[in-house]
Amino acid sequence: MCQLLGMNCNTPTDIVFSFTGFATRGGRTDEHKDGWGIAFFEGNGVRHFVDHQAAVASPIAELIKTYPIKSTNVIAHIRKATQGVVSLENCHPFVRECWGRYWVFAHNGDLKNFAPRLDGAYHPVGSTDSELAFCYLMQEMRKHFGETAPALAEMTQFMRQLCSEIAAYGTFNMMLSNGAALFVHCSTKLHYLVRQYPFTKASLSDEDVAVDFSEVTTPQDRVAVIVTEPLTTNESWTPFLPGEFKVFVDGAVLQ
Amino acid sequence: MCQLLGMNCNTPTDIVFSFTGFATRGGRTDEHKDGWGIAFFEGNGVRHFVDHQAAVASPIAELIKTYPIKSTNVIAHIRKATQGVVSLENCHPFVRECWGRYWVFAHNGDLKNFAPRLDGAYHPVGSTDSELAFCYLMQEMRKHFGETAPALAEMTQFMRQLCSEIAAYGTFNMMLSNGAALFVHCSTKLHYLVRQYPFTKASLSDEDVAVDFSEVTTPQDRVAVIVTEPLTTNESWTPFLPGEFKVFVDGAVLQ
Repeated sequence: MCQLLGMNCNTPTDIVFSFTGFATRGGRTDEHKDGWGIAFFEGNGVRHFVDHQAAVASPIAELIKTYPIKSTNVIAHIRKATQGVVSLENCHPFVRECWGRYWVFAHNGDLKNFAPRLDGAYHPVGSTDSELAFCYLMQEMRKHFGETAPALAEMTQFMRQLCSEIAAYGTFNMMLSNGAALFVHCSTKLHYLVRQYPFTKASLSDEDVAVDFSEVTTPQDRVAVIVTEPLTTNESWTPFLPGEFKVFVDGAVLQ
Repeated sequence: MCQLLGMNCNTPTDIVFSFTGFATRGGRTDEHKDGWGIAFFEGNGVRHFVDHQAAVASPIAELIKTYPIKSTNVIAHIRKATQGVVSLENCHPFVRECWGRYWVFAHNGDLKNFAPRLDGAYHPVGSTDSELAFCYLMQEMRKHFGETAPALAEMTQFMRQLCSEIAAYGTFNMMLSNGAALFVHCSTKLHYLVRQYPFTKASLSDEDVAVDFSEVTTPQDRVAVIVTEPLTTNESWTPFLPGEFKVFVDGAVLQ
């Protein structure tokens, strides 16, 4: 199984603190050493880093930990291979374009006998069930809504339905973002919290690192962090329920 | 105007030497300081780095210069903005998926009144004429050949025709790769060379750096390098003719 990390904020925020704890699980405090990846939205653009080395041994992960890239939507993944060999094309997150925006997707879980019909709009490049599910999601969205992006509420309703359909094939913990919203589906395990004023100090569970967010934020800032296993020891993380689907916009839970 | 750098090899090769000279033009020895980017194929996967900072000031460019990523197909670009603001989504190279492979594209030049009809298969995310041309290229390819990739010869013939059609709108120096072949079209300025046995020593024109390729290669290695302006002072670069279209496979010029 893999682990997922997502961040959604109302102001561009760096993920150095959370990623430092998360990346440690990529081969040191946990066994997810079959590659990793992270994607940052900056405006409509995306910075996408993938590596089939363990995150703890990757010079690119080292760069991410030291170079504060500010973003309003981030999705990261550390991989423990279940389906698909260890190779670059099988590293999450995956990126595709739809309606003139990039879409970023990562998945934790395992789908059995999932073989949807693809009509050619999106093909997987690698051999994971995850990328196949992503291509199917994007295909169905585009088929359903046509050539123009729908409003968020309609998109959310349709995507919730699709996720629940895919989740019938196994475990489908997933994060998807188009740079405006972060969509999250939970089959088995995900947690989230919203950091907002008054900000406090947080300590990582996987590294001896703490940060006082009141020193690096303004009172208007709001940041939602979503992760497989809680990243800090002294904050209150809310577990997702099995089958739950949530949308985060501007650092807040919409539904 | 921008500058382009491409590499196509028969064995995974790092681009540290060429990129070191090339990146120096991104704000130090030349004026291309409005962002840069590079994409490396590794198998079917792609590592894609873009930055809207000048290449000479970018920590990510620094990483590329010190971390030898081995690849058989690389496309890099340094930008001097002509159309489209300086932002991440306007940095080349651009990436899309077609027929289950990633396609990477970069362009140097300027297209006037180029407004092709897009059918929705590929939309630009940013505002450059370059990404629009790329989306049009991919759309026409998929429309023409349907849902299965054609043989290289057919693909080449069709792409040559498309490039010449687009080039009628202005300057269209471009590089495109699907990880197997590197397609190059020249409107105004591009040069190439093929490094193969017996390898010699090469010295960069933009930095005081030299490398003896005979020490870092095997006699079977073959590497084609394609670039806007020659990168080295003591090798023989072949200029492209205006309107010329070439395909590189396994480090050799196919046609």
